[in-house]
Amino acid sequence: MHPRSSANDEQALRDVVATWHRATAAGDVDAVLALMTDDAVFLGAGRPPMVGREAFGAALRALLATQRIASTGDVREAVVDGDLGYCWTHLTVETSQADGGGRSVRSGHTLSVFRRGADGRWRLARDANLLTPKS
Amino acid sequence: MHPRSSANDEQALRDVVATWHRATAAGDVDAVLALMTDDAVFLGAGRPPMVGREAFGAALRALLATQRIASTGDVREAVVDGDLGYCWTHLTVETSQADGGGRSVRSGHTLSVFRRGADGRWRLARDANLLTPKS
Repeated sequence: MHPRSSANDEQALRDVVATWHRATAAGDVDAVLALMTDDAVFLGAGRPPMVGREAFGAALRALLATQRIASTGDVREAVVDGDLGYCWTHLTVETSQADGGGRSVRSGHTLSVFRRGADGRWRLARDANLLTPKS
Repeated sequence: MHPRSSANDEQALRDVVATWHRATAAGDVDAVLALMTDDAVFLGAGRPPMVGREAFGAALRALLATQRIASTGDVREAVVDGDLGYCWTHLTVETSQADGGGRSVRSGHTLSVFRRGADGRWRLARDANLLTPKS
């Protein structure tokens, strides 16, 4: 049995979020997919849940075929107990075409649940995305 | 240390959600407030986080002064580990004035994090609300 919440585990969640931003900006889809569980679920407003690493990977690859993504996040809280953890984050995501055109910025909060795998690594398991277009 | 996820604990999360719906429909604000932690955080799209039981109570009392709320939820998943748990739910919330006018329906998903208190009871601690107006 793992110990209760520790500063190390909470930092591990923050590291997953930071790595996610870097890998997405670099267009490294495989690195992003390594940060989530096989069965990860992504909830958003006005659309059905996106379920599974495979579906997320296909959607991200399709997006990155024509767009660049730059994101920054401020993790407001990260908490762990046992093999479960959560964080909420204020996030800003900018997408633009490779030539810099079609710029679009969305911002808002995410609430994310993480699970620690048998290998001791924390991965995103459930995510609620509350971002809206920034005026 | 508590045991890992059990059917009892998962049912306890579902019970919190069901009691929340019933208490809200009955206009019993105190009963709703008993289901959340003191420091509960409610995240929504396009608005700042609502932080704390007191703020939630004031907002709910203001709403119930003129409106009735009827809600139904389908808990798609409930998971517990240690003293932390989460569930995601497909929710439909109908508000109307006391005379039945001004009917408005919103639906969508919520992702909720629960904590078990020293008294053994599960309470909602963090909530992301992705509901949108139903056309």
